[in-house]
Amino acid sequence: MNYKKVNIGLIGSGTIGTGVVNLIRKGISRKYGVDIKLKKIADLNRKIKRFPGIVYTSKAEEIINDPGIEIVVELIGGYEPALSYILQSLDKHKHVVTANKAVFSEFAPKILNKAKKNNLCLGYEASVCGSIPIINLLLESMPTSIKSIIGIVNGSTNYILTKMKEKDYKQALIEAQDKGFAEKDPSFDVNGLDSAQKLAILFLVSNGVYIKPNRIYTEGITDITKEDLKYASELGYTVKLLAIANFLKIPELSVYPALIPDNHILSSIENENNAVYVVGDATDSQMYAGKGAGMMPTANAVMSDIINIARNKNYDIPVFKNKSVKIRDHKDFELEYYFRFMVIDKPGVLAKISNILGANNISISAVIQKGSGRYVPIVMMTHKSREGNIYKAVKKIEGLDCIKGKTHFIRVLDL
Amino acid sequence: MNYKKVNIGLIGSGTIGTGVVNLIRKGISRKYGVDIKLKKIADLNRKIKRFPGIVYTSKAEEIINDPGIEIVVELIGGYEPALSYILQSLDKHKHVVTANKAVFSEFAPKILNKAKKNNLCLGYEASVCGSIPIINLLLESMPTSIKSIIGIVNGSTNYILTKMKEKDYKQALIEAQDKGFAEKDPSFDVNGLDSAQKLAILFLVSNGVYIKPNRIYTEGITDITKEDLKYASELGYTVKLLAIANFLKIPELSVYPALIPDNHILSSIENENNAVYVVGDATDSQMYAGKGAGMMPTANAVMSDIINIARNKNYDIPVFKNKSVKIRDHKDFELEYYFRFMVIDKPGVLAKISNILGANNISISAVIQKGSGRYVPIVMMTHKSREGNIYKAVKKIEGLDCIKGKTHFIRVLDL
Repeated sequence: MNYKKVNIGLIGSGTIGTGVVNLIRKGISRKYGVDIKLKKIADLNRKIKRFPGIVYTSKAEEIINDPGIEIVVELIGGYEPALSYILQSLDKHKHVVTANKAVFSEFAPKILNKAKKNNLCLGYEASVCGSIPIINLLLESMPTSIKSIIGIVNGSTNYILTKMKEKDYKQALIEAQDKGFAEKDPSFDVNGLDSAQKLAILFLVSNGVYIKPNRIYTEGITDITKEDLKYASELGYTVKLLAIANFLKIPELSVYPALIPDNHILSSIENENNAVYVVGDATDSQMYAGKGAGMMPTANAVMSDIINIARNKNYDIPVFKNKSVKIRDHKDFELEYYFRFMVIDKPGVLAKISNILGANNISISAVIQKGSGRYVPIVMMTHKSREGNIYKAVKKIEGLDCIKGKTHFIRVLDL
Repeated sequence: MNYKKVNIGLIGSGTIGTGVVNLIRKGISRKYGVDIKLKKIADLNRKIKRFPGIVYTSKAEEIINDPGIEIVVELIGGYEPALSYILQSLDKHKHVVTANKAVFSEFAPKILNKAKKNNLCLGYEASVCGSIPIINLLLESMPTSIKSIIGIVNGSTNYILTKMKEKDYKQALIEAQDKGFAEKDPSFDVNGLDSAQKLAILFLVSNGVYIKPNRIYTEGITDITKEDLKYASELGYTVKLLAIANFLKIPELSVYPALIPDNHILSSIENENNAVYVVGDATDSQMYAGKGAGMMPTANAVMSDIINIARNKNYDIPVFKNKSVKIRDHKDFELEYYFRFMVIDKPGVLAKISNILGANNISISAVIQKGSGRYVPIVMMTHKSREGNIYKAVKKIEGLDCIKGKTHFIRVLDL
C-alpha cells in the first residue's frame, strides 16, 4: 500500500507527549493510509527518553522553522510560550494540534482567525474531556441546534465529590492527590476554573460564539461539605460540579456544584470520569462519557487530530462569530435551591425563615429538621426561584439572631 | 457569504424523509458554508405532502439519472429495491447517504467497493443508533485499537425489558407497540436480528472487517420472563439485550440478553434509549447514549452525513478488509450464567443439580431457593464456565425426574 507521508514535530514531551510518541511508533496511522513520521521533538528537559530516528532539540523554533514539518503538536500547556509557538507555527503555514485548553479557551479568536486566514487546520480534541471525542461530535455530528450542554468536565473534582460520600473534603482531596487525579496545588480545579475554560470551548464549537472564560459565572466545590452530600442523598440527589450552557437568546453559561436527581444518568458518572450531556432540538438528550484525562486517553485524542488533519478530514468551526455576546447574569437564573442553616433550637425559628423566604417569592418544596442540641441544622429545598431573590432572602436570614454562621447554599437542577 | 451549492435527491419520503425535508428547508447546512438544495423526491405514495420548489416523482430512476444531483439519499429501507438504487447511484457517480441498516449490513462489501472504486462517499450514520454519532466516532476518533463494544442498540427490546420490571412480556410488548416503539410484527426486533445487523456495522467500522449478520450468534428476549428479571434484581443485576463484539484474535460477536450489574452505567439506559459502550486499549471505557430512533434524531444523523459529504469531510473505513474471518463459536464463550430450574420440592434435589454442574466443571456462585409447594424455583448463578459445558449440564439436569420443564438460562456479564 502507498502511504501518504506526513512529517510532524512535537513541542513538549511530558506525559501526553510520551503517549503520542508510543502511538506513532506503533504505526497506528497506517490503517488510514497515512504514515506519520515524528521528525523532531523539542523539550527543555534534556534528560527525556530518546527514541532512535528522531531529532531532539531544546528549541521549539527548530520545529516551527523546519520547512519539512507539516503539523506542529503543542503539548507544553499554559499560556506562554504555548501561544507564541502556535501562532508562529500558523505563520509558517503549519497545521497545529494542541491539547492546551488554557491557551485555546483564552485566545481562540486569535488562533482560529490566523488558521482560517492561512487555510490551515487546528486540532484541539484533547483540550476537553481527554478521550471523549466531544469536539468532533459537536462540530460534525450535530448540524441541528443545541438547547443545552451539561458537563462533568473536571476529573479531580468529580473524584473528590465521589469520595466525599464517605470522607470529608480534605481527606478526599488528599486521596485524589495520592492517586494522581488532583494537582499538588488543586485550586484551579477545585475552584471551577478548569471547568470554565472547557465550557468556553464547548460553547464555541457548538455555535461558533466565543465567550472568554472569565465571563463565565464560576463556583467551585470548596464550600461543599460531607453533611450536605448526606442531606442531598436523603432527598434523592447527588452533588456534581457541572459546566452548564443554556443556548438561549441571552445564553446562560456557568460552572457550579449542583444537586441532580440520583436517577439521572449524570449521577452515575463517578470518580475521575467525565461526561457531557447534550440536549438538542432534534436529537433529544445524548450522553458521552469516558476518561477525561490520563496519558493514553489524551494521546488517543491527539492522534485522532493528527490523523484527521493528515487525511484532510479535519473539521472547522461552522461560521465562527468573533463578536461580543451578552450572557445572562446569574442573579437572573431561575433554579431550585438547597439550603442548610444552623439555627438555635427553639420555637418559632422555622416560621421566621419561612416568612423571609415567602416575602421574597421563594416557596419551599422540602424541609428536613432533626436532632436536638443548642444548634440544629435545618435543610430546605425550594421550588424554582429567581437567584437574585435567593441572595436577598439569605442575607436577611443570616441577619436573624437565631441563625449561626453562613448558609450552605447549593443549586438544584431538576433534570 | 458564498455558499457551496449541492443538489440532492431523496428516495423515500416517509417519517425520516419528512424530518430531513424539514431540516433542509430550515437551511441548517448554511452555517457550514453549504447550501443543500433538495431537487427531487421519489416516492411511490403520490399523496405525500408536497413542498414548493421540489420535483416529485414516483420513479427513483429520475433521481439516479439526474446529472444535476450530486448526493442520493436512500430512505426506503429493506433490501430491494434499496440495494439496486444505491449501486445504480454509485454507478452514476453520485455520493450516497442511507439510513438502511439492513442493506448496508448485508451488502457492505459490494457497496463499499463500488464507492471506493468510483471515489465516492457513503454516509450511513443513521443506520445504527439514530442520533448517536457512533459511526463517525469509531471512524474518526478511535485511531487506537478497540478491545470490546457492548451495545444496547435496539430501542424496542430495551423498552420492553424496562417495562417488564412491572409487567409481563406480552403486556410490555403491547405497551411498546402502542407508544410506537415496537412494530406490529415485532419479531425482527425481539429475536435480536436488528441488533445483529447493527453489530455487524459497528464491527466493520471498528476494524475494517466484514462479518455477515447471519454469522453472528443471536438470541432474542422472547424467553425472558418477569420472574427472571425479579431474581436478577435480587442478585443485583439488570437484564439488557446486548450486541457484543470482543476484538480477539478469533473475534467473538453475539447478541443475547444478559444480566449486567445494576451499578454498571449500561444498566441506567432505560426505555427506548440506546447506548454503545466501547472499551479501548488507550481510551479505557467510553459510553455514548441517546435516542436510537425516531424522526428527528435519525434525520439529524442523515443531515450530518449530507453536510459532511458536501464539505468533503466524509470519513471512510480505514483499510477495509473484504476477507473471510473466523469468529468464535458460542460454545467456546467463557461467561457466568444464571439458571432458573423448576424442581419438585423434596430433599436431595439441590444436591443432584449441584453434582451435575460440578461434574461439568461449573462452580456455583449464588443460589436462591425459597417458597414451597409441589414445584419450587431454584435460581443459581455460576462462576466463569465454558458455554459448551453449560449446555451439557443443562441437558443432563433437564433429564432428572425432579425437574419440570425447560431451564431458564441467561448469560451474565460481570462488567
